[in-house]
Amino acid sequence: MKRRDFLTGAAVAGVAATGAGTLAAPAYAQGKQEWKLVTTWPRNAPGVGVNAQRFADYVTAMSDGRLSVRLFSAGELVPPLEALDAVQSDTAQMAHSTPYYWVGKTPTLNFFSTIPFGLMAWELSGWLYFGGGQELWDEVYAPFGVKPFYAGNSGVQAGGWFKKEINTLDDIKGLKMRIAGLGGEAMRRLGAAVTLTPPGEIMPSLMSGAVDAAEWVSPWLDISFGLQKAAKYYYMPAFHEPGPALEVTVNKERYDALDDDLKAIIQRAAQASAGESLADFTYHNIDVFDRMKKEYPEVEVRTFNDEILQALAGATKEILTELRARDELTARVHDSYMDFNRKAQNYQNRADLPVLQMRRFLTDMG
Amino acid sequence: MKRRDFLTGAAVAGVAATGAGTLAAPAYAQGKQEWKLVTTWPRNAPGVGVNAQRFADYVTAMSDGRLSVRLFSAGELVPPLEALDAVQSDTAQMAHSTPYYWVGKTPTLNFFSTIPFGLMAWELSGWLYFGGGQELWDEVYAPFGVKPFYAGNSGVQAGGWFKKEINTLDDIKGLKMRIAGLGGEAMRRLGAAVTLTPPGEIMPSLMSGAVDAAEWVSPWLDISFGLQKAAKYYYMPAFHEPGPALEVTVNKERYDALDDDLKAIIQRAAQASAGESLADFTYHNIDVFDRMKKEYPEVEVRTFNDEILQALAGATKEILTELRARDELTARVHDSYMDFNRKAQNYQNRADLPVLQMRRFLTDMG
Repeated sequence: MKRRDFLTGAAVAGVAATGAGTLAAPAYAQGKQEWKLVTTWPRNAPGVGVNAQRFADYVTAMSDGRLSVRLFSAGELVPPLEALDAVQSDTAQMAHSTPYYWVGKTPTLNFFSTIPFGLMAWELSGWLYFGGGQELWDEVYAPFGVKPFYAGNSGVQAGGWFKKEINTLDDIKGLKMRIAGLGGEAMRRLGAAVTLTPPGEIMPSLMSGAVDAAEWVSPWLDISFGLQKAAKYYYMPAFHEPGPALEVTVNKERYDALDDDLKAIIQRAAQASAGESLADFTYHNIDVFDRMKKEYPEVEVRTFNDEILQALAGATKEILTELRARDELTARVHDSYMDFNRKAQNYQNRADLPVLQMRRFLTDMG
Repeated sequence: MKRRDFLTGAAVAGVAATGAGTLAAPAYAQGKQEWKLVTTWPRNAPGVGVNAQRFADYVTAMSDGRLSVRLFSAGELVPPLEALDAVQSDTAQMAHSTPYYWVGKTPTLNFFSTIPFGLMAWELSGWLYFGGGQELWDEVYAPFGVKPFYAGNSGVQAGGWFKKEINTLDDIKGLKMRIAGLGGEAMRRLGAAVTLTPPGEIMPSLMSGAVDAAEWVSPWLDISFGLQKAAKYYYMPAFHEPGPALEVTVNKERYDALDDDLKAIIQRAAQASAGESLADFTYHNIDVFDRMKKEYPEVEVRTFNDEILQALAGATKEILTELRARDELTARVHDSYMDFNRKAQNYQNRADLPVLQMRRFLTDMG
C-alpha cells in the first residue's frame, strides 16, 4: 500500500469508526475525481497518440489518482474534429490535439500551430513561455471557454512525396497535391490543385495517381505509412511546417476550480510532455531516416530550389498579410510572432545554423 | 484554505478528538518532508539560478508541500563545487548543476554535458529519453549513489570575445584564452594558452589583457556581464558547446524511498524545467542579440573559417579517441553518442539546416 492510500484510508477508517463518517466520506469522494481527455489521434499512434497518453498518465501519477485522467481516442467519445467542442461543453474536460485543427473556427490559431518559414520548435516555446505568446493564445481561446497549454512539437516536418521532380514553377502548375494548412494555400496560389485527403487515404490516392504528390509528417511516420512505395522523390524539409505544435486544451471553468497543486500538475505535465514529444520525434526521425537510406536506396531526397522557395515565401507573405487584416487580435498576434521570427532568423544565422553546418568536420572523420 | 489543507486538517482534527491521535499524528508528520536542493549557481542568476528555483518551486507546488524543496545557492550550504558530494553524503538531497562540473570525477560525464561538434539540445534529449542515453547516465552516476535527471539546456553557446581576429592557425598559437571543457583542450592542442578563470574574473582579465580572448555563455549572459566593452570581435557560435545540459541529481536512496507520485513529480518537474530552460535561453538570446546589434554597433560578429574548424575537429577527434580508451563504460557511452551524432548530422542536413536557411526568403520581405 502506498503512503497516500494509507493516509487517506486511515483517515476515513478512523473517522468512520467514530461515527463521524458524514464529515470524512464526502471529503474523500471530493478528493478524487476522474476527468475525460479526448484526443484527435488514433489510440497509441506514434508521436501524437502516445504523447497524449503520456500526458494523461503523468497527471494521474503525479496526483496519485486524485485527478485521474481517462483518455478517449479519436471517435471513442466524440468524432476527432469535435474534440474542442467537447471541452467547451464539458463533455470532456480536456483535449489533446493541435491548434491547426481549429483554424476553421479562428484562423488566428495558425500562429500557435506553425507558419511557413516560421519559428522552430524551441523558438516557438520561447515565444509562448517568455515572449507573450501564451497570453495571446489565452486570449484567442477565451471565447471558447478553454485554457490552452503547449504540449508537444513534431519539429521540422518533411515536404512530401512526389512522383516527379519539381524544378521550375511550371512543375507546380496543375500538380495534384495533398498538403495541409497555410502551405496548401501557398501551393494553391502557385497553381497546384490542392486536396486534403484524410490520413488513411494518403497512400491509396498516391498509389492510384489520384494525387501526384502528398505530404504527411516526417520520416518516422511517413515510412510507417509506406509512402516510399508510392512515390520516389522525397522533398525535405517542409517549407510550411518548421515546428507544428501539439496542445492540451482544458475547460477553463473546470481548471479554475482546481486546487493549486492540481493546476500546477496539469501545467507541468503539459510542459514535460512538450519537451519529451520534440525529443521523441527528433530521435525517431534521425533513426528512421538512417534506416530509410539503407532499406530504400531508391528514394531520392530533394529540396526545393531557391526560385520555388522564393515564390512560396511570396505567397506566404500575401496570405499572412490577409490574415493580419482580419481583426485587431489577429494583427497583434501576427506582429508579435513575425517580429520575433525576424529576430530569430538574425540570431540563428550566427547560432544554430552554423553549428549544424560545422558538425560535419567531426562526423566526416567517421 | 486549500482543499488539501482542509482534508488533512479535518482528518487530523477528527481523529484527534476521538483519542486516536497516535495513529493519525505520525502519519501527518510523515506525510510532509523538506528536502534541501544545493545549486552551483548564484541565487536567481539568469538562466541557471532561475531555472533551479523554478524546479524547486514546481516540486513543492505539485506536491502541495508534501515534498517541500528549499534551495541553497552556491556557497550557502556547501561550496558550489561540492554540490555533488553533498548529495552523495545526504547533506542535501538534490543538486541543480551541470554534469560538466564533475568531469574531474569521471570524464565520461562530458557526453552528458556537451561535446564539441556534438548534439544539439533537442537531439541530446532525444538520445537521453529514447536512445538509451539515460540508462548510460544512470550507470555513470551509480557509483556516486545519485540518480541524474536532465533539467535544462542553454542551447548553442557563443564562441567568445576576442581582442583580435582569428584568421589562420597561427593566430591561435600562443593566444591566451579563457575557455572551458573539451573545447579548451582542443584549443590547447592547437597551441593556445588556455586558462579557466572563474566567472567573476572574466571581465577584469579581458580588460587588463591577462587574456586575449574569453568565452562565457551566449549573448544573453555575455552582454549582462559587459564583455562587449572588453573585446570587439564576437566569435559565434561555439564549436565546442552546441547544447550544454543542466542536471538535477538526487540521492538515490532517498529517491528510491519516495512514494511513486513524488518520484513522478520530481521526474516531470525536471523534464518540464528542461524544456522551459531551452525556451528561456532561446528567447533571451534572440532578444538580446537584436538589442546588441543596435546598442553596440562596434561589436563585430565573426565565425571561425573552415581551416580552423577543421583543425579543431581534428583535435576533438583525438581527445574523444583518448577518452574512449579509458574504460569499457566510457567506450559504450562514446559509441552510443557518436553513432547518434553521425546519424543526426545526416538527418539535419535535410531537416533543421535547410529550414534555417530558407526562412530568410520570408523574413527578407520585412
